Amino acid sequence: MTDHYQKSLELHKKYRGKLRTEAIAHIESRDDLSWAYSPGVAEPCREIAKDPEKMYDYTLKSRTVAVISDGSAILGIGNLGHRASMPVMEGKCVLFKEFGDVDAFPIIVGTQDVEEFIKTVKNIADGFGGINLEDISAPRCFEIEERLKAELDIPVMHDDQHGTAIVVLAGLINAMKITGRNIENMRVVINGVGAAGVAICKLLLLYGVKDIVMVDSVGTIHPGRKDLNPVKEMLTNITNTACLLDPSNSACIIGWLAAAVSGRDVFIWVSVAGALTEDMVRSMAPDSIIFALANPTPEIMPDLAKAAGARIIGTGRSDFPNQVNNVLAFPGIFRGVLRYHKKQITDDMKIRAAEALASYIQNPTEDNILPDALDKGVAEVVALAMKD
Amino acid sequence: MTDHYQKSLELHKKYRGKLRTEAIAHIESRDDLSWAYSPGVAEPCREIAKDPEKMYDYTLKSRTVAVISDGSAILGIGNLGHRASMPVMEGKCVLFKEFGDVDAFPIIVGTQDVEEFIKTVKNIADGFGGINLEDISAPRCFEIEERLKAELDIPVMHDDQHGTAIVVLAGLINAMKITGRNIENMRVVINGVGAAGVAICKLLLLYGVKDIVMVDSVGTIHPGRKDLNPVKEMLTNITNTACLLDPSNSACIIGWLAAAVSGRDVFIWVSVAGALTEDMVRSMAPDSIIFALANPTPEIMPDLAKAAGARIIGTGRSDFPNQVNNVLAFPGIFRGVLRYHKKQITDDMKIRAAEALASYIQNPTEDNILPDALDKGVAEVVALAMKD
Repeated sequence: MTDHYQKSLELHKKYRGKLRTEAIAHIESRDDLSWAYSPGVAEPCREIAKDPEKMYDYTLKSRTVAVISDGSAILGIGNLGHRASMPVMEGKCVLFKEFGDVDAFPIIVGTQDVEEFIKTVKNIADGFGGINLEDISAPRCFEIEERLKAELDIPVMHDDQHGTAIVVLAGLINAMKITGRNIENMRVVINGVGAAGVAICKLLLLYGVKDIVMVDSVGTIHPGRKDLNPVKEMLTNITNTACLLDPSNSACIIGWLAAAVSGRDVFIWVSVAGALTEDMVRSMAPDSIIFALANPTPEIMPDLAKAAGARIIGTGRSDFPNQVNNVLAFPGIFRGVLRYHKKQITDDMKIRAAEALASYIQNPTEDNILPDALDKGVAEVVALAMKD
Repeated sequence: MTDHYQKSLELHKKYRGKLRTEAIAHIESRDDLSWAYSPGVAEPCREIAKDPEKMYDYTLKSRTVAVISDGSAILGIGNLGHRASMPVMEGKCVLFKEFGDVDAFPIIVGTQDVEEFIKTVKNIADGFGGINLEDISAPRCFEIEERLKAELDIPVMHDDQHGTAIVVLAGLINAMKITGRNIENMRVVINGVGAAGVAICKLLLLYGVKDIVMVDSVGTIHPGRKDLNPVKEMLTNITNTACLLDPSNSACIIGWLAAAVSGRDVFIWVSVAGALTEDMVRSMAPDSIIFALANPTPEIMPDLAKAAGARIIGTGRSDFPNQVNNVLAFPGIFRGVLRYHKKQITDDMKIRAAEALASYIQNPTEDNILPDALDKGVAEVVALAMKD
């Protein structure tokens, strides 16, 4: 076992988890008891019964996010079940607190049935000011998030989708500046059509990218494929769109990853195992931009990618430049939506978050397109971007 | 509005609730991130996937209780709905922390359907080391608690039932010593057949009391009544048992409260509105013991009760002697069951808790049968009693 795994086990055991609760109101006197509990507490109860919005005045709902998982897609490991997801959920809550000063609490849900999961989350949602969904497998995660967004009156975000997408877009905005690219004619390939891949694709299209090809383990996504789930089916309408007009057109890309990569400006690899070869990098447009996000081992090492012609490469690793780390996004986003009483996290807000992150770097360079993941000034800048 | 209501509103608003989360693991360096989150956190996840019991080693489950309500019976107010229960649940969590050093988190459940409530709680239970049910209306609370106890592998306790019962029994144990009473021939009447009344009745029977009459708003509980719910039906087999043999026997008490009180040694009033008259006290056995638990106004004031012949009177009020306050029981009980890895809170454990509370008073007197609710040494004594 590597050192950091051993250390992680030891420290988890020492602390028995990483999060605790703390009383804001300390109870030392009869007077303390009487306002914080009986009989005084009856009054905020009655006020909330008259107007449920008063929960934001009198309870922790105003400050608190639920971090919820069913454990169906834990980190890059897979479906280990809800119990095994707890250390990740607690870790996420720690990051919420440490980076966003947001109170967050982990909830693990013991069902992977979509309807029952949704019902359970809805039944406990009113105690929270927002919901951060985490480590839920695709394509279930799409329906779960959409339904909860539609059926609840608090912000809901599946971070594996949108957190990653926001940070990738932020990095891409700066990478575009450095490489002098134009959003209108930039050609993008995304390998991986899971939670992150789909969200990145949608966010880039919203931001103005016109040409994206998606690739899964079977090859490029195109209308001729008979094996597509409904989400991938939907993607055939908005990506690789040359195929919609004429599948025989050379602009319609049918085939393996290599065919999709050739000539592309931007390569984003998420969720599918495998390696990005130097040959593939060589086949891309000059000064290409690569996000190779597998953790801990990127699909290609930055030095090899650069030697093969890439100009900018982002990874998930903290010991390489340009780390794509969701902690840059979610603490500030929820800090902002709680502060400004937002009921939804809209596409516009996601784009504003990405722009705020990109602007945080005053002079972007090839090795500096994203803020440092440990920079505790980032969350406030992202939170401010949630305002309008 | 009285002062303590106004103060409670102001302080709830100032703090926006009374509870917050806190990181045990602070994140200042890449190394911190790497053990508390990615990639190190994968290792405790894998360990838990192999053995779910490892949750107690590596997560907050080992320290944490869910305080759960549907808001169907908030304090003495009634069914104000789940949202309005939040200030009480947060307050309870604060008491757990302040008195028991137990991490507790409030969960409000947005359904009052028994099956759906049970399913929701079961679906989120694995993240917690115990469940404290709170402010759930009778008789629903009995089925909910029994089912959750049977179907979950963590301790579940409805505090409105057992917390109150344990503290009343503790007080009664000392009151018996002072008045020289014997458990075998002590005659008890309980007015109120809700959560607390039923639990007190059951615990006193378990402890050895032989003669209890229960009274609800219609009168004494006896087998001749046609309006009984299943719980009250069950009570006809274990209380007022003379009626089982022969309803015409004078020992079978059929009638109003006054008939039930006459000649009794102990009067416990919970859950039913009304006043205990001095005439009723005069009709009791000499040196009677009274628990008049309505809050904030007891069913009879202690000085009046004593003038009418009662020797010992306990109330819910902190400004009178002998306060029956659940905070004497639940923090220590859950502290103990978490520490000793108990999967259930058994009847034996409840009796041991009551005995520990009673013994905490070295020299019981008429005005000192229970520990002070603010005494922070109590919880550890109760916790130790959970051991065997």
